[in-house]
Amino acid sequence: MKVGFVGLGQMGTGMASNLLRAGHEVTVYNRSAGKAEGLREKGARVAARVSEVCDGAAAVFTMLADDAAVEQVVFGENGILASLARGAVHVSSSTISVALSERLDAAHGKAEQGFVAAPVFGRPEAAAAAKLFVVAAGDARMLETVAPLLDAIGQRTFVVSDQPPTANLVKLSGNFLIASVIESLGEAMALVGKGGIDRHQYLDILTSTLFNAPLYKSYGGLIADRKFEPAGFAAPLGLKDVRLTLAAAEALRVPMPIASLVRDRFLTLLARGGERLDWSAIGDLARQEAGGDGGPLGIPRHRSG
Amino acid sequence: MKVGFVGLGQMGTGMASNLLRAGHEVTVYNRSAGKAEGLREKGARVAARVSEVCDGAAAVFTMLADDAAVEQVVFGENGILASLARGAVHVSSSTISVALSERLDAAHGKAEQGFVAAPVFGRPEAAAAAKLFVVAAGDARMLETVAPLLDAIGQRTFVVSDQPPTANLVKLSGNFLIASVIESLGEAMALVGKGGIDRHQYLDILTSTLFNAPLYKSYGGLIADRKFEPAGFAAPLGLKDVRLTLAAAEALRVPMPIASLVRDRFLTLLARGGERLDWSAIGDLARQEAGGDGGPLGIPRHRSG
Amino acid sequence: MKVGFVGLGQMGTGMASNLLRAGHEVTVYNRSAGKAEGLREKGARVAARVSEVCDGAAAVFTMLADDAAVEQVVFGENGILASLARGAVHVSSSTISVALSERLDAAHGKAEQGFVAAPVFGRPEAAAAAKLFVVAAGDARMLETVAPLLDAIGQRTFVVSDQPPTANLVKLSGNFLIASVIESLGEAMALVGKGGIDRHQYLDILTSTLFNAPLYKSYGGLIADRKFEPAGFAAPLGLKDVRLTLAAAEALRVPMPIASLVRDRFLTLLARGGERLDWSAIGDLARQEAGGDGGPLGIPRHRSG
Amino acid sequence: MKVGFVGLGQMGTGMASNLLRAGHEVTVYNRSAGKAEGLREKGARVAARVSEVCDGAAAVFTMLADDAAVEQVVFGENGILASLARGAVHVSSSTISVALSERLDAAHGKAEQGFVAAPVFGRPEAAAAAKLFVVAAGDARMLETVAPLLDAIGQRTFVVSDQPPTANLVKLSGNFLIASVIESLGEAMALVGKGGIDRHQYLDILTSTLFNAPLYKSYGGLIADRKFEPAGFAAPLGLKDVRLTLAAAEALRVPMPIASLVRDRFLTLLARGGERLDWSAIGDLARQEAGGDGGPLGIPRHRSG
Repeated sequence: MKVGFVGLGQMGTGMASNLLRAGHEVTVYNRSAGKAEGLREKGARVAARVSEVCDGAAAVFTMLADDAAVEQVVFGENGILASLARGAVHVSSSTISVALSERLDAAHGKAEQGFVAAPVFGRPEAAAAAKLFVVAAGDARMLETVAPLLDAIGQRTFVVSDQPPTANLVKLSGNFLIASVIESLGEAMALVGKGGIDRHQYLDILTSTLFNAPLYKSYGGLIADRKFEPAGFAAPLGLKDVRLTLAAAEALRVPMPIASLVRDRFLTLLARGGERLDWSAIGDLARQEAGGDGGPLGIPRHRSG
Repeated sequence: MKVGFVGLGQMGTGMASNLLRAGHEVTVYNRSAGKAEGLREKGARVAARVSEVCDGAAAVFTMLADDAAVEQVVFGENGILASLARGAVHVSSSTISVALSERLDAAHGKAEQGFVAAPVFGRPEAAAAAKLFVVAAGDARMLETVAPLLDAIGQRTFVVSDQPPTANLVKLSGNFLIASVIESLGEAMALVGKGGIDRHQYLDILTSTLFNAPLYKSYGGLIADRKFEPAGFAAPLGLKDVRLTLAAAEALRVPMPIASLVRDRFLTLLARGGERLDWSAIGDLARQEAGGDGGPLGIPRHRSG
Repeated sequence: MKVGFVGLGQMGTGMASNLLRAGHEVTVYNRSAGKAEGLREKGARVAARVSEVCDGAAAVFTMLADDAAVEQVVFGENGILASLARGAVHVSSSTISVALSERLDAAHGKAEQGFVAAPVFGRPEAAAAAKLFVVAAGDARMLETVAPLLDAIGQRTFVVSDQPPTANLVKLSGNFLIASVIESLGEAMALVGKGGIDRHQYLDILTSTLFNAPLYKSYGGLIADRKFEPAGFAAPLGLKDVRLTLAAAEALRVPMPIASLVRDRFLTLLARGGERLDWSAIGDLARQEAGGDGGPLGIPRHRSG
Repeated sequence: MKVGFVGLGQMGTGMASNLLRAGHEVTVYNRSAGKAEGLREKGARVAARVSEVCDGAAAVFTMLADDAAVEQVVFGENGILASLARGAVHVSSSTISVALSERLDAAHGKAEQGFVAAPVFGRPEAAAAAKLFVVAAGDARMLETVAPLLDAIGQRTFVVSDQPPTANLVKLSGNFLIASVIESLGEAMALVGKGGIDRHQYLDILTSTLFNAPLYKSYGGLIADRKFEPAGFAAPLGLKDVRLTLAAAEALRVPMPIASLVRDRFLTLLARGGERLDWSAIGDLARQEAGGDGGPLGIPRHRSG
């Protein structure tokens, strides 16, 4: 299939690469040009502007940092909306707001173009290995059209509904749940750590018993090690996703107190200079509030007979 | 080994039964007498008072509902403290406060008795099947003494430290983490549900991807089904454990905002008549605050082209 | 002075009326025309469009519902920005976002027009009686120009700084503080009410002692009476102001946990159908969560000798 | 009247002094003896033990630090319960738990003694000047008996009900409300301070307009000055009162999220070494979380034209 791809960050590069590997004819575009060279070597055509990416494409992916970048690329002059053929599909894999997804859906519909929201779960390594989980929503025929493309980038596609914004809502809520895991682990480790228990041993107990999910192992390890650099997913992106979750929740009138709390955590982290840290660094704030690891204050104040 | 066992609720009955099956000589006691009959048939001696259970026992287990019950059985007239032989061990498997564990440790030490805290993770079915996870702490020699007993009731024993209260802290923090999972799932489901997404499908996406732990599957299912009766673990017990977590955290000066939030949730649930519901019913409160499942307010307000 | 006035809601009508009373030559505009009739009788000229209001005016006030309304009136075709004379001043009294105030300041500066942010504290009766408190910020010369106008609408003007957005920040933070009073009173009354204490008597104790501010008396009375209709300040406006406070706080990286909590309260209130209630209705939510007023659960379970 | 007085801290000394001044025959007791000398000079009889204080007394006041101290003095050997004459009244002015007040009421009732809870609002200076506000509850006849005594120590007495614990609940909830004011002012000042606004000017605006209560002026001043030493009311006492509020709320099943938040604030403050600071120091934590006062991050990024 003839496919366009806009946005060659760590995630996008891996995804575009897998589209090539699956035999599709891929034209790529990135605002800063250097990023496309690796893909050119793998057979991609490199476009100089967004409109070129749309030329003759049956589908165009966008995998960009935030709402503003997507708006620019879609609604901007010679953007996707203006350039995509009737009946061709815009596949939006970025983590964007529910509100923007609604706007994109409406605009593409009016232009008689298709729109599929297909955000993904997974880190850059998963993107490179075609192991992403794809959460897709949109018109059934459009989904059918792009199914082979989604299959090429992920290990499994989950179709949520025929309404694209629902896929974005699932993605945002998933990131909220991860942030909740980070925060709750941070609180629990602050407690047991100050109580004189080794955090790594504690984590081992947790993940050998009830919390035997890779998520607990990986984020728990980062918190226990206090190893927040380099960032796998930077704190400002964490804040962005919680903000988008809260915005969707506000539009739907759903109070989410843990989301509110996590947002405050990100603000604290960023206010104190955590811009470049991994988002799991919010999991260290409870420990800091508790005045560190204690020791003299620890539980073991006496010896058993 | 000659073993005593006090407390024959659902958990205790399963544990005592497995001690018998492993070949130990078990004397059991329960405040209300009827509960012991099944164990008598399996070979247990049934005591009429706590002191009898201690007669000649190398170790006595307690598996009781709360601090007050344990205090009564240990410190009461003719209780364990007064009746247990020097050098024999009290194994406390109840979920009790860190402060009581400290008191028990000190009192038994003074009486030249051993004390091991060995709370367990697992539901009644796991207790019956000897599949509990045991978290143990205490003096190394004492732990060695009771190791075969702990092996008989669980699938694995984790030794935390030589200070008994640390095991109680691990247990409490673990229950706090489960409550956090319930609350965060409740918020996420309130959001996506009001956004027009099927909760069961949503849960399936979560547990097929990042949240592939049995915990998410089981509690998520209860929340999605809104099936909170019969209670596997009743709401008042959930409140008790969060209260004990917060008490330990206060003693150690560790702020735990999610624990505070979860406590408020339990109070709301109980204030509205949820005494007999499973503790996962706090996972429905976000949905209730959001005014139910929405529908007219849901995201899907337009049709894509 | 020749003055324009856009926005004739309850607040704006009172303010424009007082400008007339002070002898100024006032041209008014409101999107829906009927509202201007009373002012016409008092001597106002009634404009048919925004641009007319700017004709020859030394200053133009805007007193509108939200950011969108202000943006429309200022940046829209033939809006204030396009119509106001060089050197004339736009006085913005609406409760708007800090971000919009920054944009307005920059745009008017570029157009060589003045911009003063002058939000007000006070209810419609205070506006009618020229008893508002005006919080003003902007260039010193501009403030001097409009000082007689601000004096005409309020009992006192507080100049914050030469940066207009600071006045908006003070206004938003003030509304946040009022919402905090409502929420904390709501929690305290839920507690003592369920403890068997008469809420009105309780409020009387509070306001006769430490909390002797009219604010506590008025909002406390509404909560004790559970009288939330008609709305003096409707719940959706309360949510808007907390949202703008949180947005400013996020831009400045300031976590405000009570603001987050109050936001969740407004969402709950609105999700349950509280659109038309006064914002003080969030002060009833703690009582509702507590399962009402109790009685059987109340403290007085015994009689003293 | 013949009156006993136990507890000669800053508050108790002022109160006992005013009982003397009003012409009563006062016998005082304090655990550490030196504190009574000033009162001896004013005419008090100084007792060597609690029982002496009760000898022939029509009423005995207790004004002690916490539940433990009151329990000791009342239930201890030769304590008030054992020594007070039938029909004489124990007036408890300490800030104690609702649960202890219930126990005291029951015990004194059984001993055919009277019990009046009469906690007070006011700082040591108010105690010295007989300007306290007294919140009293108990049997009507008992209240009548002690009315002249309460009049001697305060400027006004509020009778809540015939159930003593209700007065304690009012006192605790009042301290909760003060803590809420501190926290909300702390958040607002963190916001406006980082936004480039002078905190003292901000406070002046607040207290000249809507928040014209001495409470806002005094606590706002401490927060703006960041002057938390010497402590007028020390942070550990603040934590104690919030804990007692939350305990009463839990017993009554009333969720109080701001109380939970304030508790976490006190824990943070104390974990970081704030034991000796005034409780208003929690009002600086939002500023600290926000990374201090900002400046470069402040709003004023541009100059108006």
